[in-house]
Amino acid sequence: MDSTPRAASRLVVPQRHAFAGPLPLQSGASLVDYELAVETYGTLDADRSNAVLICHALNASHHVAGIHVLDDGREDPGWWDNMVGPGKPVDTDRFFVIGVNNAGSCFGSTGPSSIDPSTGRPYGAAFPVVTVEDWVDAQARLADRLGIERFAAVMGGSLGGMQALAWSTRYPERVAHCISIASTAKLSAQNIAFNDVARQAILTDPDFHGGDFYAHGVVPRNGLRVARMIGHITYLSDDDMAEKFGRTLKADDLAFGYGAEFEIESYLRYQGDKFSDYFDANSYLLITKALDYFDPAVAFGGSLTQALAEATASFLIVSFSTDWRFAPERSREVVKALLDNRHPVTYAEIDAPHGHDAFLLDDRRYHRLVAAYFDRIHAGLAS
Amino acid sequence: MDSTPRAASRLVVPQRHAFAGPLPLQSGASLVDYELAVETYGTLDADRSNAVLICHALNASHHVAGIHVLDDGREDPGWWDNMVGPGKPVDTDRFFVIGVNNAGSCFGSTGPSSIDPSTGRPYGAAFPVVTVEDWVDAQARLADRLGIERFAAVMGGSLGGMQALAWSTRYPERVAHCISIASTAKLSAQNIAFNDVARQAILTDPDFHGGDFYAHGVVPRNGLRVARMIGHITYLSDDDMAEKFGRTLKADDLAFGYGAEFEIESYLRYQGDKFSDYFDANSYLLITKALDYFDPAVAFGGSLTQALAEATASFLIVSFSTDWRFAPERSREVVKALLDNRHPVTYAEIDAPHGHDAFLLDDRRYHRLVAAYFDRIHAGLAS
Repeated sequence: MDSTPRAASRLVVPQRHAFAGPLPLQSGASLVDYELAVETYGTLDADRSNAVLICHALNASHHVAGIHVLDDGREDPGWWDNMVGPGKPVDTDRFFVIGVNNAGSCFGSTGPSSIDPSTGRPYGAAFPVVTVEDWVDAQARLADRLGIERFAAVMGGSLGGMQALAWSTRYPERVAHCISIASTAKLSAQNIAFNDVARQAILTDPDFHGGDFYAHGVVPRNGLRVARMIGHITYLSDDDMAEKFGRTLKADDLAFGYGAEFEIESYLRYQGDKFSDYFDANSYLLITKALDYFDPAVAFGGSLTQALAEATASFLIVSFSTDWRFAPERSREVVKALLDNRHPVTYAEIDAPHGHDAFLLDDRRYHRLVAAYFDRIHAGLAS
Repeated sequence: MDSTPRAASRLVVPQRHAFAGPLPLQSGASLVDYELAVETYGTLDADRSNAVLICHALNASHHVAGIHVLDDGREDPGWWDNMVGPGKPVDTDRFFVIGVNNAGSCFGSTGPSSIDPSTGRPYGAAFPVVTVEDWVDAQARLADRLGIERFAAVMGGSLGGMQALAWSTRYPERVAHCISIASTAKLSAQNIAFNDVARQAILTDPDFHGGDFYAHGVVPRNGLRVARMIGHITYLSDDDMAEKFGRTLKADDLAFGYGAEFEIESYLRYQGDKFSDYFDANSYLLITKALDYFDPAVAFGGSLTQALAEATASFLIVSFSTDWRFAPERSREVVKALLDNRHPVTYAEIDAPHGHDAFLLDDRRYHRLVAAYFDRIHAGLAS
């Protein structure tokens, strides 16, 4: 009954921040005249000490929390709305939380589908490859713009957790706490393999047109669909899939054809179709490359310990027992490197059935852990 | 120096067996006027008691052992040539070994690329969906033709292991020993998911033309390539991929583009390209469906124990520790159901790093185990 007024109080409006000066990228190229889509929740303290930056993963955005009302009237909650908000683990009654869509993505920040001012046409294939470190640099500029010198916390899951890690060494003095969830310090060969198959599905879709499909009025829907289906399999655990879908058929009998016969087929095809409706193919390519490239140890002869030496933040590292994309072993490598450096670190391996996706789900122990950690941050700020 | 004479002694020539009578299929359709490509190795005893049937997996054929000489002069050994041959674990000096290409495949037996006598054109999409049980029925007819009433052993890995299992219950009196390696009694939701993504890549390739691409003079190469890349990832273990490829780059520096930068990308794309050169897309669809459908327990209310009750064979079940496609747990389910029935079963879980592919590789402990089991079979025959 009171859903409308409550929803109204949670409505959030994205901001756009334009940056004129060129952002030098790791590739040697640079990004000029770019915009970032941003949302904020809560209020920045007078001493600007309660800011939390939330970094997003592959297919998410600046819309972390709160509600957008879509054109058709449906409410669209933020992707981490169970984690961020008033009274939630990242409590926006106490913290000023920032969500930012990374450059190269497709939810309002400048990306491949944006108009390249130098040509008047979408960037397409001309959009430069961006890296985790490039995003962190862009986020640092945004922080300057917002007057935030130091974050109480930089936090993210999966690819977002990589950004949090990169913040801790790239701008050590600007991060009090680094929270990296269901993440890794580098992709494995198997991770890269899955990403490359997904990219190949897109790159070889005839509707991709070398990345300039905008001009042809098409999108490489089949490629994107397959890419998402592959990705989705790696987000769920084998057991969770067995539990949710098993070998259940949609009909009573086998059809002996290629329609969706098993529930799992129906589910995955639906996820693929939905994704191909809204996600930009060039963004998918760019963001998976950013995942593949991330490897802070490489500049230190492969030593993650040395790579993390300069960090001054306190760390919270969280993994999930059934996550086989970025398995607990990967988090433990990060924890070990932090301990080698005698950096303060809290590590939790959450026993959860939902695979990699667990970081987005409402798990009591996981949320209590994060809430407790933010209580500690808050207490530290208050002391 | 003596490779040519030795190779010559190992040359093997495929046979073709034509079957005129219709083969009723599980779908209700039937296969008429079909041919099977067959190879045999060794000599059938006078009492016809030393025959071993080898069942193949997704992309293999009747060419199990020995050597073909290709048009370009290269030697092409059988896909299980390290396992089957004179003095090898399945010793063709003692056993008469039969390899048969299953109907629906694309290596000489009747399949989607064969001419449909009723139209004069390739079957294409009109080729009926075939199941593991259908293949076993066709193999039984072939055994009749070859005068083999009872096999000393029916043996296979992966999908081939499913056929061996199906033999043990469909023709219990015709199988003395059932050897099922790196296999399962049913695919998991995750297994089906991977198969369906692979199928979707093929089905949505514009060059697929609803399965009738032969008439268009094209093949859905991009779809097949992606399908094979996905499959290949699931054949290798995460650790093995890390060991073989890791994050090694092909060049010294990152290229910031979509070429093959990491060795693993180069390897997988090569595997995909090679596969799309020789494998038929309709066969890929059919064979993955056969994998998905196999579930002998389903006719017994889900009880694998009941499904295996009528078997009279002795069983050898083998799994590999790092096989995450058909993990040891899946083999243990089969072993448990056999033990529930008090069927004689030998089970070995081989600690091998190579994932699902281990069943094809030359592993000393694995081969010794199979050799010892066949020694036992031979001794039993002799006694």
